[in-house]
Amino acid sequence: MISPELLEAFTAVVGANNVLTDEASRSNYGHDETERLLYLPWVVLKPETTEQISQIMRLCNTHKIPVTPRGGGTGLSGGALPNLGGVLLSTERLNKILSIDERNLQVTTEPGVITEVLQDAVKEKNLFYPPDPSSKGSCFIGGNIAENSGGPKAVKYGVVKDYVLNLEVVLPTGEIIWTGSNVLKNSTGYNLTQLLVGSEGTLGIVTKIVLKLIPLPKYDLLMLAPFASVEKASEAVSAIFRAGFTPSALELVEINALKIVSEMVDSHSLPVSDDIEAHLIIEVDGNNMDVLMQEMEEISVLLADYEAGEIFFAEDAQQKEELWKLRRRVAEAVKMKGYTIEEDTVVPRAELPKLIKGVKALGAQHDFKVVCYGHSGDGNLHIRINKEGQPNSFENPEMTAVLEDLFKLVHSLGGTISGEHGIGLIQKKYMPIIFNEAQLNLMRGIKRAFDPNNILNAGKIFDL
Amino acid sequence: MISPELLEAFTAVVGANNVLTDEASRSNYGHDETERLLYLPWVVLKPETTEQISQIMRLCNTHKIPVTPRGGGTGLSGGALPNLGGVLLSTERLNKILSIDERNLQVTTEPGVITEVLQDAVKEKNLFYPPDPSSKGSCFIGGNIAENSGGPKAVKYGVVKDYVLNLEVVLPTGEIIWTGSNVLKNSTGYNLTQLLVGSEGTLGIVTKIVLKLIPLPKYDLLMLAPFASVEKASEAVSAIFRAGFTPSALELVEINALKIVSEMVDSHSLPVSDDIEAHLIIEVDGNNMDVLMQEMEEISVLLADYEAGEIFFAEDAQQKEELWKLRRRVAEAVKMKGYTIEEDTVVPRAELPKLIKGVKALGAQHDFKVVCYGHSGDGNLHIRINKEGQPNSFENPEMTAVLEDLFKLVHSLGGTISGEHGIGLIQKKYMPIIFNEAQLNLMRGIKRAFDPNNILNAGKIFDL
Repeated sequence: MISPELLEAFTAVVGANNVLTDEASRSNYGHDETERLLYLPWVVLKPETTEQISQIMRLCNTHKIPVTPRGGGTGLSGGALPNLGGVLLSTERLNKILSIDERNLQVTTEPGVITEVLQDAVKEKNLFYPPDPSSKGSCFIGGNIAENSGGPKAVKYGVVKDYVLNLEVVLPTGEIIWTGSNVLKNSTGYNLTQLLVGSEGTLGIVTKIVLKLIPLPKYDLLMLAPFASVEKASEAVSAIFRAGFTPSALELVEINALKIVSEMVDSHSLPVSDDIEAHLIIEVDGNNMDVLMQEMEEISVLLADYEAGEIFFAEDAQQKEELWKLRRRVAEAVKMKGYTIEEDTVVPRAELPKLIKGVKALGAQHDFKVVCYGHSGDGNLHIRINKEGQPNSFENPEMTAVLEDLFKLVHSLGGTISGEHGIGLIQKKYMPIIFNEAQLNLMRGIKRAFDPNNILNAGKIFDL
Repeated sequence: MISPELLEAFTAVVGANNVLTDEASRSNYGHDETERLLYLPWVVLKPETTEQISQIMRLCNTHKIPVTPRGGGTGLSGGALPNLGGVLLSTERLNKILSIDERNLQVTTEPGVITEVLQDAVKEKNLFYPPDPSSKGSCFIGGNIAENSGGPKAVKYGVVKDYVLNLEVVLPTGEIIWTGSNVLKNSTGYNLTQLLVGSEGTLGIVTKIVLKLIPLPKYDLLMLAPFASVEKASEAVSAIFRAGFTPSALELVEINALKIVSEMVDSHSLPVSDDIEAHLIIEVDGNNMDVLMQEMEEISVLLADYEAGEIFFAEDAQQKEELWKLRRRVAEAVKMKGYTIEEDTVVPRAELPKLIKGVKALGAQHDFKVVCYGHSGDGNLHIRINKEGQPNSFENPEMTAVLEDLFKLVHSLGGTISGEHGIGLIQKKYMPIIFNEAQLNLMRGIKRAFDPNNILNAGKIFDL
């Protein structure tokens, strides 16, 4: 599908070792964590520098070859799937942390750095980069930028977009730009930085990233509160904020999700009994242990009003880590049980009880099993549905019928269909539930301004 | 300049009382707080609803009439100046706070509400909307969105963009859209919300605003620290953050600015002596008074390393208010002394000493007087220059020569030319110092996608 001349040109840019055309490689790079979808690219390229990416884009733009950028391949919406074949451009070799600026509390990094590696590197300097998606051990920071990732800490510290100060970007035409400046406040022209964040690799390929850091909080405390009713648990969530607390994490896990993950990880510490419907995982952090202890105490008292059961307090770093590991592995565990597609709904926080009630009703109505878990403090609920004997795929009409009803429900509650995963390939058919033609046309206009030949991650988010 | 038929059509939309064509009205609405600039619009329209604005935009788009939206008229970059004549569209009658959602910690407001009125209204519910530009007593929240305003609290709490969840916008074509959803996390399509924030009324007219609120902190403490050297003062700024503190305000005021404002307000409490070059105003806030006292104590100790003089602690609400009033009136006072144009430079925080040293050198070199003050915690320094007998105008070539050198210096320090005021009319000629053609062309492409006939606030930020 790609001419020998073009392959030669690519080879001249990145070297023969970094031009892969064998079927195994194409297959390796043809999927991400979205369902079991596989699309073979024509060729996989592994550039190492901004300049190489610029040259690749110039070639592809001239020859109108589709290009799909790919980070760690952990995406859940198909954003990195090479659905049109073409060039799969992996950022894995742009894997250097370029500088940690302790004077200005900033880090400059390449996109192919694993998120947790970056977090650990700044932690050594007593600095903190909070966004921590569940996949932090394998996802790339570049992919986090593309999807505007969140994670448990977002409830207090915000999502990726709140930390990105400036981006070096190779445009689809091959031009290289910076989106802004390395400053904390900026009213100089349109906010290209924020436009790039969450644009899912459709507007440009991010090649350098400047992130804001904050001082690392000294202490944290973690507790697990069981509830006899999932709705009571979700009501407690918004009560905590109304009372003036801002936990550094506030996660909800339904009992059926917890049971599945407990089987997988053989956990001791978990209270799993038949009269529990859900747990809240609540963390507070800060620099004064007395204040934190008092906050935990006050939150416990408040939870009693929502019929919380006996609260488990993690006693040491090991217990905390065990609990977090459990939480992070929920997605993997339920996926293994056949709940393949993870939805990423988000509603205003106080509408969470209605969302949970509604999704249960939808499950019953369509005869689907449902599991819920997620970042309840943000109103961001991950939902997976499953039906024995049904293909768990975005192409299964019975499944998409449920999802369409679900997203209409979310929209009616003032919410939207993705809080941190992006739209990518498999959610784009639901975009008209959220956006009308005027809105979609603005997005299309922006895409055209960046990518006149529609070569970069085309067919993601929306069709032109 | 506008046909009688069109005037009649406008009158049918907003009523005769809200169509002003007399010279006094046109003159009233023909300026903002930028220099002494005056541009007469052909007609002033005062719509009251989104629907009326939509109808006005449809008419203007059909007839290709320039439209300039205007809020409180407190802008410092000329964003609300009707430089092409045409329609001046005032949002003053869209002045209702529509709802304060205590369950979700959100407020929905029209754009013509005065920022301080909005802050006070949510404060009554024990909620906090932090961004507080100096003009908060007269500026509109809509204008704050247009310019991505900041203010002293930004250093801890962020700027306007960090609080905007969703916007209702009338597009230049008259279409009405919402930019997003009322949720805390959103990865659903391009971030139109953040694109609109800071776009200075060039992409659409904001008609409804959904803002995130946070719990109101219970206590704050305020102190004023004098320094014998302005550079030492600015070095202390970044040391405070490196030591792990995040003050809720960290302002720097040079002594010559403070002397001018002291004359104006007849203040008692201010230590103004010949061996002082600058003051830092430092505020901490939170929910635990003991913790705050300790923080203040630790910060005081740290300041001693930077040769701070005797620190003044505000003892009660009245002393705090007096000090803040003084700070807020600096701009007005120095303006009355002939320093007309306020620059809005921003650099990475730790580069502040270099910026201050550089701007002093530039002043000496060009024989201009210089005053500096501003949000030093953000690296955001307001600079005013002045020369006896020289017109203080963006059209004075001797003045613009200094400013051009200043902005090149800012750029070389990794900074940019506006942190919170916007580019508007009078800064656009400096945009090429910060952005190359590729970057400006992206912005132009975005503008065209929103405003194909280039009728809305045309000629602001950049030329098409």
